[in-house]
Amino acid sequence: MTEIAPGSTKRTQVHRVPDRAVHDVEVLYSILDAGLVAHVAVEDDQGQPYVIPVGYARMDHQVVFHGSTASRLFKTLATGQPTCLTVTLLDGIVLARSAFESSMNYRSVMVLGSARRLSGDEELAALQRISEQLTPGRWETARQPTPKQRAATLTLALSLDECSVKMRTGDPEDEPEDLVEAPYAQLWAGYVPLVECLGEPVADRHTAADQPTAPEVLAWSHRPWLPAVQ
Amino acid sequence: MTEIAPGSTKRTQVHRVPDRAVHDVEVLYSILDAGLVAHVAVEDDQGQPYVIPVGYARMDHQVVFHGSTASRLFKTLATGQPTCLTVTLLDGIVLARSAFESSMNYRSVMVLGSARRLSGDEELAALQRISEQLTPGRWETARQPTPKQRAATLTLALSLDECSVKMRTGDPEDEPEDLVEAPYAQLWAGYVPLVECLGEPVADRHTAADQPTAPEVLAWSHRPWLPAVQ
Repeated sequence: MTEIAPGSTKRTQVHRVPDRAVHDVEVLYSILDAGLVAHVAVEDDQGQPYVIPVGYARMDHQVVFHGSTASRLFKTLATGQPTCLTVTLLDGIVLARSAFESSMNYRSVMVLGSARRLSGDEELAALQRISEQLTPGRWETARQPTPKQRAATLTLALSLDECSVKMRTGDPEDEPEDLVEAPYAQLWAGYVPLVECLGEPVADRHTAADQPTAPEVLAWSHRPWLPAVQ
Repeated sequence: MTEIAPGSTKRTQVHRVPDRAVHDVEVLYSILDAGLVAHVAVEDDQGQPYVIPVGYARMDHQVVFHGSTASRLFKTLATGQPTCLTVTLLDGIVLARSAFESSMNYRSVMVLGSARRLSGDEELAALQRISEQLTPGRWETARQPTPKQRAATLTLALSLDECSVKMRTGDPEDEPEDLVEAPYAQLWAGYVPLVECLGEPVADRHTAADQPTAPEVLAWSHRPWLPAVQ
């Protein structure tokens, strides 16, 4: 696969395993919409890179994320330094007949560009999107950011104009000899799905003992609930 | 918390939320030993950073990870370019009474340094550790790397001499007014645990239909198994 699709550039072409590259904006959006954490690169003034985990959301054709206005690294990002934001969803553990071909099933998005600081209505919309991504339905019930809280928040956007999508799904791809030579040909091989589940909600000490769990939490369908232990 | 513990330097002190910083090598090791994916920074010759997801393992006081010898970015890492490797474990979704204080429970390790390419016995030991991290018990049953496979693999190590550990656990930390002012004081607040579970193993098409799942897979206790749907 050598074509360059919209959003893909020479820098984001997947050279090593091109059959794991995906050129489809719907797939790109679905991966970003399914994640909770992104990892973003920042470099300090000594040339030392840092990889920082951040909450994020997709807002139209960009990713938005936030940090503290007191964070040295976030302030550096806001200057428009070249950056990369990566979201990785782990879908399974792949067991081949060789250690070399054993792998993970995953979906991954890498976004390149320069972050832009948001303000005003656009910033508020981004904060709402980030809240909805992590805690769907909670924006309407919880206190929305006050002016003081907004002043303490640095909200950034990164366009999806330059990005790459990689996926691996399904069975292992064993080397031909491992499918015929004993003892490896006789091994069970396949994959074990990995699923991120929600556990039973835990109320904090300020919540009344007889208060039912918030309805917006019980309505969450963005991740499977772990069945209660009987 | 301003002291600098072993492994912590001025660069890795957590300035913003110092009570989330942890100085304990056992905690550091336990987080690294619980993860499956790290995100590592590499910069190309144009100054563009990339954040790459990698499988990894801890080996003594270093993290080891591998890539392809055909990967341009991995070859750049092997030159000893300053890098950062971050492991983030998501433990829960924290619902405060304000959107601002809503958060995630997590454990995170950030390692700074320069990667060193491994070879010989040290490389083989690292490959075994990486295999054991992802697929415990499989190294002994699957085919171990052949000379050709090892030649195609670039195995790197990064010392844990300079790193930071951050954690957030438990309840939200609401602003005092949100605990007394209606309607926010009446909101259910707390957290919802996030758990990465293993689903039912799926055999590949080369595995005999009546072959039981590999015993080493059924023995996995490194992650909870998702109960079968009845």
